[in-house]
Amino acid sequence: MSITAPAGFRAAGVIAGLKASRKSDVALVVNDGPLHVGAAVFTTNRVVGAPVTWSRQVVADGVINAVVLNSGGANVCTGPEGFADTHHTAERVAELLGCSAGDVVVCSTGLIGERLPMDKLLPGVDSAVAALHTDGGDDAATAIMTTDTVPKITHVIRAGWSVGGMAKGAGMLAPAMATMLSVLTTDAVVDAATADAALRAATATTFDRVDSDGCMSTSDTVTLLASGASGVEVGLAELTDALTQACGDLARALVADAEGASHDIAVKVVGAHSEAAAVAVARAVTRSNLFKAAMFGNDPNWGRILSQVGTVPIEVAEFEADQLDVAINGVQICRGGAAGADRSLVDLAAQREVHVEIDLNAGSHEATVWTNDLTHDYIHENSAYST
Amino acid sequence: MSITAPAGFRAAGVIAGLKASRKSDVALVVNDGPLHVGAAVFTTNRVVGAPVTWSRQVVADGVINAVVLNSGGANVCTGPEGFADTHHTAERVAELLGCSAGDVVVCSTGLIGERLPMDKLLPGVDSAVAALHTDGGDDAATAIMTTDTVPKITHVIRAGWSVGGMAKGAGMLAPAMATMLSVLTTDAVVDAATADAALRAATATTFDRVDSDGCMSTSDTVTLLASGASGVEVGLAELTDALTQACGDLARALVADAEGASHDIAVKVVGAHSEAAAVAVARAVTRSNLFKAAMFGNDPNWGRILSQVGTVPIEVAEFEADQLDVAINGVQICRGGAAGADRSLVDLAAQREVHVEIDLNAGSHEATVWTNDLTHDYIHENSAYST
Repeated sequence: MSITAPAGFRAAGVIAGLKASRKSDVALVVNDGPLHVGAAVFTTNRVVGAPVTWSRQVVADGVINAVVLNSGGANVCTGPEGFADTHHTAERVAELLGCSAGDVVVCSTGLIGERLPMDKLLPGVDSAVAALHTDGGDDAATAIMTTDTVPKITHVIRAGWSVGGMAKGAGMLAPAMATMLSVLTTDAVVDAATADAALRAATATTFDRVDSDGCMSTSDTVTLLASGASGVEVGLAELTDALTQACGDLARALVADAEGASHDIAVKVVGAHSEAAAVAVARAVTRSNLFKAAMFGNDPNWGRILSQVGTVPIEVAEFEADQLDVAINGVQICRGGAAGADRSLVDLAAQREVHVEIDLNAGSHEATVWTNDLTHDYIHENSAYST
Repeated sequence: MSITAPAGFRAAGVIAGLKASRKSDVALVVNDGPLHVGAAVFTTNRVVGAPVTWSRQVVADGVINAVVLNSGGANVCTGPEGFADTHHTAERVAELLGCSAGDVVVCSTGLIGERLPMDKLLPGVDSAVAALHTDGGDDAATAIMTTDTVPKITHVIRAGWSVGGMAKGAGMLAPAMATMLSVLTTDAVVDAATADAALRAATATTFDRVDSDGCMSTSDTVTLLASGASGVEVGLAELTDALTQACGDLARALVADAEGASHDIAVKVVGAHSEAAAVAVARAVTRSNLFKAAMFGNDPNWGRILSQVGTVPIEVAEFEADQLDVAINGVQICRGGAAGADRSLVDLAAQREVHVEIDLNAGSHEATVWTNDLTHDYIHENSAYST
């Protein structure tokens, strides 16, 4: 159960033939109401796909009736013709559902720079509408996969209402949202302003704190649909809490399925003078190819952690180099900026998860950013992707 | 010929036994004058090695008599004891040369977090002093190598004077200087202020524009020694020009020998509203693992270039997404932010060098940053380095 677990939603996933693999590639999620409240957050990249340009307009009024998503092509850098393709896709959905095209969010994922084959996509939309079902969540989650090896779904249950979610993303996965598409649904009764504020707060501490490969996407879109079908009125704090749990589940699932990864790595920074400082230091470490290659080699190379911490300017994070402590999987391998416990005490090979804790000893704030190791399989997948 | 090519210098490279491989690991460069003008630039990392802390003080008065360098250990994150080790090394050199320890620059390179074996290093210093020779430049260049596969040397000849140089660096190679050690010598007659200004200007457009793996070092040091032995007085512009050529040669050699690389990649950004904007865009592209993995796969994936360009904020670089042009090896593969010439026209397999040109169409400034591809060999070398 995922996006169709909350009341008021139908979904579908079908094969339109956009992928050479002939796996399912068009997904549709419909909000049957009674409310049609919607919110969305998008990539901050200045180069964005036609679907992002389109969907930013759709969500402006806080009303969304449906989300149509395709894998097999990102429709990015495709010019005015690409935008027309997105527009036509929304119009086809709207026509079949009897709503306005201006209330249909469009998401596309795949290779940048190529037009979508509309002669396949539009019939795919027809099939998806025909296949809509209140149990269709898993089919939709499967249809948005690209290099993902498993569908990512979640369901967070509260008293009388719930949040469902699905996401895709395995590469080009970095902050300012993890590179991915996600749809969240809830049957809570909320207004558009609450939906928007809760979604922004929830993504800021979950998807925004995943950095798999440092590469920001042109297509990231997280859409929230609220049907109100539970009849339960929910406030901002409650909704934010449930969405944060749902987004956290999905973000963690993205890291766990990151391209070629053999380790999921949590970099937790404590003792920071602000949360922003903790995030900045954690991000600097999660961006280091040297650190990530060391993790792949099961090498607890704390020197590569400290050298990254040292790249963060003092205006961003206060700390003294000789006050830095680092623990890996609970072993205090660096104390006061110098060698601590023996590195042989750290066993990285035993489990997939790695927990790095960096204490700046400069305050009481903390933050965690998730990443993964840099492996031969990442190189392999990404040197051969489009050819 | 390298650092001993200009008149007034002796150098040596010897085996002290710091490296398990028993290759040479201690280098010494001595300025025999008549002038002992010196300047240096250092890493901007906030976590620095004891040698950087020491040498910043040495260079403050513009006088340097000698530079002693070791591979086999970086002496970084080694606490007060590590600083004492650097101090003792400088004192041993000074005692043997009959100068002040305060005029001896110390550089160390290798693994972070371990003390240097002083019982091997100090006898190595003795051997190096005994081996000093006016032809010793190549021995010194060899003794500073770590994962380098070839020594990096240069000699730039002007009318009656010249600049010699050596450098090491193959990994942890990124801006705010390429991660490396370099010594430059000149027999020109210059004062300390001129030497300092010329060195800063030359490194800013050469070493600072190499980004191999995005990882800033804790030990970067570029030292310039001027002996005045040619008797030729040289002005700032002349010296900057010769140093820029010498540093450019060495920086290019660092990229050519970067760990595991199979392509050297020049990312040239033109049509920028400022040089800083051009540098920022070029750096964003050279930092992309996805772009670099595509290059390894000989895949002219311009979508991964545009998605990186789009990460640069508008405050930093002005451009419109639909005005971006990209050429790879002269083929205009992207025009106006959309597909241009057919990707099959780009042959990346034919040669090691790749030339990417990005036109922002927003001004008349340009800059080039060099990087290399991301390969299986990089992962291999860096997952097994310290173990």
